[in-house]
Amino acid sequence: MKRKNIPSVTINRLSIYHRCLEKLIENVDKRKPKYISSSEIAEITGINPAQVRKDLAYFGEFGKRGIGYPLIDLVRELKKILGLDKKWSVIVAGAGNLGKALVKYKGFHKKGFVIKGIFDNNLSKIGKKLGHIFIYDIKEMEKFIQAENVNIGILVVPADSAQEVADKMVTGGIKAILNFAPIHIVLPPEIKIHNVDLSIEFEGLTYYLS
Amino acid sequence: MKRKNIPSVTINRLSIYHRCLEKLIENVDKRKPKYISSSEIAEITGINPAQVRKDLAYFGEFGKRGIGYPLIDLVRELKKILGLDKKWSVIVAGAGNLGKALVKYKGFHKKGFVIKGIFDNNLSKIGKKLGHIFIYDIKEMEKFIQAENVNIGILVVPADSAQEVADKMVTGGIKAILNFAPIHIVLPPEIKIHNVDLSIEFEGLTYYLS
Repeated sequence: MKRKNIPSVTINRLSIYHRCLEKLIENVDKRKPKYISSSEIAEITGINPAQVRKDLAYFGEFGKRGIGYPLIDLVRELKKILGLDKKWSVIVAGAGNLGKALVKYKGFHKKGFVIKGIFDNNLSKIGKKLGHIFIYDIKEMEKFIQAENVNIGILVVPADSAQEVADKMVTGGIKAILNFAPIHIVLPPEIKIHNVDLSIEFEGLTYYLS
Repeated sequence: MKRKNIPSVTINRLSIYHRCLEKLIENVDKRKPKYISSSEIAEITGINPAQVRKDLAYFGEFGKRGIGYPLIDLVRELKKILGLDKKWSVIVAGAGNLGKALVKYKGFHKKGFVIKGIFDNNLSKIGKKLGHIFIYDIKEMEKFIQAENVNIGILVVPADSAQEVADKMVTGGIKAILNFAPIHIVLPPEIKIHNVDLSIEFEGLTYYLS
């Protein structure tokens, strides 16, 4: 697999294929081999069949002409390339409502995202627990990231302290940040940041209401 | 515009064009007319240029051959077709951490999603305010939806009461539900539901960590 050469727009599409096929797989009897064609994948995902074939060619000679791709194996390969086949250590900065909700969110652990700690500067919160996760002093965050080998930081602090906290995550050794703060964060180019905009979730709905 | 004939996969792509072009527009001087070609749109969005041209053909004769689409007008048309050019009345069912966080989330109001009320069955919460939004008794929800002409319901109740609360939203008159509860909700076919999975937000990041 020529991993280094995969452009980020392709990664986004691989992520879409993975998500749609994983949903499909839930309803498939795993003992029987089941194949899916590029045009079927195109239909489910809304991505052009030629594009699907081109994207999946990154996996080498995987599909069978006239039959398609083995569904279970394809999902397994997609998980592997996307890094979704392993466990990731995550911390949350900000023990406000959204931070608390994310710590309790069951979907993360199921997908391999394990929250190791939550950090805040509010003395009345530090030392308490959310479920079985401790709230630590934000001053301890850099040391904690190093000691626990944390991979991903979730940023849910107020906008005016988001840049400072993100910088501390990076000096601690975090390589990827999920940012819920409504502000543009500037980071070294090797650090990946994904800005979450929850209002996007509405977009598919309003068309049908119009 | 042949609105009725637009398939849902196209709507998803229109939403992607809208989001990417709106980001682009923030950096463009609005007084100067600026054109964007289908191949430029393809490059930003990762969608095949032929697909882009086909999708935007729903707007009729809009692009100019060899020049492209007028950027500002295109974004305005996309907003209109997606229903993002108007205000929508929204309620939140569930005043837990995530419910509270969503009520305070600034991005919604800016995009035209106006939260009118939050509903819960916890007597210690009912009657209190979150910012300037009242927490009402969930028993009042159906009447409130009718009286206030609420368009969209956000479901952030525990999984075991999600179906019941969703049913009440529908009998109240809600046509679209944004579901954060980790459960499959069954609704009449004319009601649109979008299930939010926050773990998806991680997917783009883990590839780069692998």
